[in-house]
Amino acid sequence: MNKQIGVSSTKLESPVFIREWASAVGKKEGEGPLGGLFDFTSGDDLLGNKTWEEAESAFQKKAVSLLFEKEQSAVNSVRFILAGDLLGQEIASSFGLKDFRVPMFGLYGACSTCGESLSLGSMLIDGGFADQLVCVTSSHFASAEKEFRYPLDYGSQRPPASTWTVTGSGAYLLCKDRDTNFNDKQKSELSQKNSGIYNSMPACFIERKHEVAITAVTTGKIIDYGIKDSMNMGACMAPAACDTIYRHLKDFERQPDYYDKIITGDLGIVGQKVLLELLSQKGFDISDRHIDCGIEIFNSKEQGTNAGGSGCGCAASVLAAYLLPRIASGEWKRILFLPTGALLSKVSFNEGKSIPGIAHGVVIEQM
Amino acid sequence: MNKQIGVSSTKLESPVFIREWASAVGKKEGEGPLGGLFDFTSGDDLLGNKTWEEAESAFQKKAVSLLFEKEQSAVNSVRFILAGDLLGQEIASSFGLKDFRVPMFGLYGACSTCGESLSLGSMLIDGGFADQLVCVTSSHFASAEKEFRYPLDYGSQRPPASTWTVTGSGAYLLCKDRDTNFNDKQKSELSQKNSGIYNSMPACFIERKHEVAITAVTTGKIIDYGIKDSMNMGACMAPAACDTIYRHLKDFERQPDYYDKIITGDLGIVGQKVLLELLSQKGFDISDRHIDCGIEIFNSKEQGTNAGGSGCGCAASVLAAYLLPRIASGEWKRILFLPTGALLSKVSFNEGKSIPGIAHGVVIEQM
Repeated sequence: MNKQIGVSSTKLESPVFIREWASAVGKKEGEGPLGGLFDFTSGDDLLGNKTWEEAESAFQKKAVSLLFEKEQSAVNSVRFILAGDLLGQEIASSFGLKDFRVPMFGLYGACSTCGESLSLGSMLIDGGFADQLVCVTSSHFASAEKEFRYPLDYGSQRPPASTWTVTGSGAYLLCKDRDTNFNDKQKSELSQKNSGIYNSMPACFIERKHEVAITAVTTGKIIDYGIKDSMNMGACMAPAACDTIYRHLKDFERQPDYYDKIITGDLGIVGQKVLLELLSQKGFDISDRHIDCGIEIFNSKEQGTNAGGSGCGCAASVLAAYLLPRIASGEWKRILFLPTGALLSKVSFNEGKSIPGIAHGVVIEQM
Repeated sequence: MNKQIGVSSTKLESPVFIREWASAVGKKEGEGPLGGLFDFTSGDDLLGNKTWEEAESAFQKKAVSLLFEKEQSAVNSVRFILAGDLLGQEIASSFGLKDFRVPMFGLYGACSTCGESLSLGSMLIDGGFADQLVCVTSSHFASAEKEFRYPLDYGSQRPPASTWTVTGSGAYLLCKDRDTNFNDKQKSELSQKNSGIYNSMPACFIERKHEVAITAVTTGKIIDYGIKDSMNMGACMAPAACDTIYRHLKDFERQPDYYDKIITGDLGIVGQKVLLELLSQKGFDISDRHIDCGIEIFNSKEQGTNAGGSGCGCAASVLAAYLLPRIASGEWKRILFLPTGALLSKVSFNEGKSIPGIAHGVVIEQM
């Protein structure tokens, strides 16, 4: 079977099952519209740590620990962890995951890293290199502000096009085989089970009627439209999302209605407009089925998050809490999931460089 | 065929050929013992750019361009680029590679990233996801000093255990198939062909009698001995190198003499001593066949590089200029190549965290 589709897409020979998923988020995310859906919501964004970086590591560790709690047999059979975050030199992942002592591939695609990890993870399993592995990514509002803009204590103001980095992490257990016990143990997604610290929303139950699997991937290219405004990252990333969606549809000769939803990571309300406009110029209208994780995770007006949520933890936690359960319940049959990343650092920004984008596309279906 | 060997190693089903390789380095590297072996040596470490970060991008771009010059048919058939560097948010790779417009996976494993890219790259090819792809990593002395320690203009002094970040990049063309024209065009490694800007050493010619391929991989775990001295990164990384070598030999039930050379990335003279001692405690003596790229690349005493070279560009440029040609010429039959990474950032260092290490092992043989 030819796994190489078109110029830049991959069709997996066998579906790679996302057997379990877990999310751990901060206080503000818990207060948002998806608040009842996360596995763990902390009232303390430091999670008991002294620094924001340690806190981000703790969220990542918590998400992976929850995954192993849900599927205890995986603890000793996971062959790789594929992980990444937004901080310089990926310290959230290094310090968050070192105690698991699992062979690790560190990844960086800015906020697209969740898609990159699912892409490479599913290919490693489909290629026979692992039977089970973990993908995990994270971000933290306070560590990201300090890394990319200003420490919170400066009290900087934020323009309307700016996004709010999500405090949280999402982790996934990718498996070669179907869950042999799935029919016996059809699961209820029961949120807040590990939390209790803070939650303003009622818990939400969804019954898992289907297994969920990755079946195809379209790998992102770096796309640079020369935009330099780090307070408008949606506009920086939208061209990359457009490029990946367009290449995906062309490579597989599909129309947008092949998918129940086409879901970007963190374009926010500004980037969403740009994406829909750019895609319509290329002849594709996805406006009736586009969702953006950054728009979903906050009530922007009430919560003051401007254009929406962002960060490696945004797409990752929304996928685990909101998207995968809807595929598992049968509400959606198939989605194209595209975490989007803005490839900047404070150094490149201060040196006047543009902010290129990248978006990694992953097809996730019910099985 | 079972590709999963032991707990953490991978045996590729078919050899993945490293059909071409290229290296581009700075002035000091050109003055070192390997000076005559690099494809391109620049007398200007800025390569005509305004910032050190742009310069690092330019070295990475140069290495990939040289690769495509050597194998022009690859320009349009490369399916992925797997790349990484040491800078925050990997800006050297993003800005260095965006013009190639090839789907990209950004990787981060500190100075081990070269090994990580060859590991994932060879698995992607062996799994049928690409027929040709490029792996490339880079580092730059000045951008790394600014990122991790102090800008050069501060004139900070360096303790004896410190290493000197290599200015340079190494790139590799990984292919599924043998080079059908190999026997016709058996190549001479002719260094300096693209340079002429600066070179103190005579050019070195090696005839390629064999093809070169990756056959196995052992993936690194994060190993943390609690060392906090960022001026002694050799000691921070040596436990990770020991762990990966030990797991590799156990997984494959091999003795060190299975390899002509066991080659670490950038332990330097301090880290080398620690590695040999740690491995001997585990019952393995590799002292008669251990090489460290960081020790090879500089005449430390004369060049004032203290414990040796380091950085993503160290192992990468030495592999391309010095190691692969020796396998291709028949001098060595088989090596275990282990780039080593120190997982710190200036933030984690300033917050008093330890410096964990990671090392990714790759088996490279003549074919």
